Amino acid sequence: MKNLYFKKLAIIGVGLIGGSLAIDCKKNGLAKEVIGYGRSEENLKKAVSLGVIDRYDLNVEKVVEGADLIVLATPIGSYLETVKKFLSSVSPQAILTDVGSVKGKIVKDLEPILQNIKFVPGHPIAGREKSGVESAIPGLFKGARCILTPTESTDHDSLDVIKRLWERVGAVVSYLEPREHDEIFGMVSHIPHLVAYAMVNTVLAMEQENKKLVSFSGGGFRDFTRIGASSPEMWKDIFLANRDIVLNQIGQYETVLARLKKDIEDGNETALLQEFEKSKKLRESLN
Amino acid sequence: MKNLYFKKLAIIGVGLIGGSLAIDCKKNGLAKEVIGYGRSEENLKKAVSLGVIDRYDLNVEKVVEGADLIVLATPIGSYLETVKKFLSSVSPQAILTDVGSVKGKIVKDLEPILQNIKFVPGHPIAGREKSGVESAIPGLFKGARCILTPTESTDHDSLDVIKRLWERVGAVVSYLEPREHDEIFGMVSHIPHLVAYAMVNTVLAMEQENKKLVSFSGGGFRDFTRIGASSPEMWKDIFLANRDIVLNQIGQYETVLARLKKDIEDGNETALLQEFEKSKKLRESLN
Repeated sequence: MKNLYFKKLAIIGVGLIGGSLAIDCKKNGLAKEVIGYGRSEENLKKAVSLGVIDRYDLNVEKVVEGADLIVLATPIGSYLETVKKFLSSVSPQAILTDVGSVKGKIVKDLEPILQNIKFVPGHPIAGREKSGVESAIPGLFKGARCILTPTESTDHDSLDVIKRLWERVGAVVSYLEPREHDEIFGMVSHIPHLVAYAMVNTVLAMEQENKKLVSFSGGGFRDFTRIGASSPEMWKDIFLANRDIVLNQIGQYETVLARLKKDIEDGNETALLQEFEKSKKLRESLN
Repeated sequence: MKNLYFKKLAIIGVGLIGGSLAIDCKKNGLAKEVIGYGRSEENLKKAVSLGVIDRYDLNVEKVVEGADLIVLATPIGSYLETVKKFLSSVSPQAILTDVGSVKGKIVKDLEPILQNIKFVPGHPIAGREKSGVESAIPGLFKGARCILTPTESTDHDSLDVIKRLWERVGAVVSYLEPREHDEIFGMVSHIPHLVAYAMVNTVLAMEQENKKLVSFSGGGFRDFTRIGASSPEMWKDIFLANRDIVLNQIGQYETVLARLKKDIEDGNETALLQEFEKSKKLRESLN
């Protein structure tokens, strides 16, 4: 098995995920040189001064030129446009991978234009409350899951390289079909975030009437504000990219909520107890 | 100002809150003897062996007899029935207080039958994921808020005694009208819990179709399982006791969620970004 080593690692989007991967690749001797691309020069300068990347270029074609590994880590809404820009500059031996939270739409959008490029769709599960390169840290992926979603077009050797890459930075790799990935993460990640955003914004609307509201917020609501503080741009893109699945799943959530509402309205103690017991049991099974 | 000291402290319902208060009262020399009442003798025996209470009696009349402070700390659904049972045994000088999470219905139910008893409605905000006397700990109320909701019928001296009691165990006391209390905690506590229960149970329903679901649950969903594991009996009672306010507030939450759903459906990026930015700003203001 060939040693895992990249002469030129191109990080397209140097934020929390791209930045943390860059740090770990350097630290573990997986990459000789790490070059960053992003929209904001200020952010890229910060990334250099923090030692996250070696250098940057505002011309994405220059960044991917000669790179043997290209990691796409911008908000997913800008993937297509960005890839189109650098497409013709990718070396034939390069592997392109991504870290986007939605896989179906990405594969559907990118595979047709990436026919001559080895593309491995991926999704490390390592979000944190904070975003941006200043949140990038070594060891972010230690013990984290990383899902790879190969398709019929995925090159086997490249898939293996990307699997080993994530394992080398401490992640536990699983494979899923793109659609199954999006259904699972729709339910355990996208919908919880949407539900939290809705909760926070309901309280904000009510606060117009009662200024004391937020100051009294204890355990229950505080938990929601944490996930309701995730990167707006990233989440806007996720919901739009996973639109059909998310809409269906919100519908299912609304049905369960409406059932609980009805039980409260009817004073149905038995039904409420059953629903809450079920919920409590799940937590116990996770411990 | 008279020293705060109770010769006989009766704890009606020796769970997390009643038990923790009993511990702190003994520890701080506020009570000579602490006697517990509850439905389960096993739980009361455990409370004695853990040193939470000095002794217990399964006859609630015996427990309140001669007590100078009675703390009602059972699930709120059983308040009325329990109070009716011990009503005639309460000493004229005794103060009765409670720790229930809903105040409007409790005041409405209890005040008419407590006309000769000094009653101070209260709500310490000190829930934990766990319930039961085995979760009772010293210092639970340190730095916690405790809301007292006096009404026109509340005796001023007794209110002052209960205020000092909570302050002595470390709580920060505020006053609210019962209805305002229920509106505020409906929004920052009851609705978040309902929303979490609905989220957990939606995932459980989906898990029937895809067994992998829960094993992939990372950050987002895990947060919900914590509050979705709160005591089913306690929460069933809370939702039913705060029924009208909760129903109205779920309605408001549903409206916000439906608006987000519509924005996703329409691909309205600007609207989604605005909603998420608002949510993020709140978190920042809480830090």
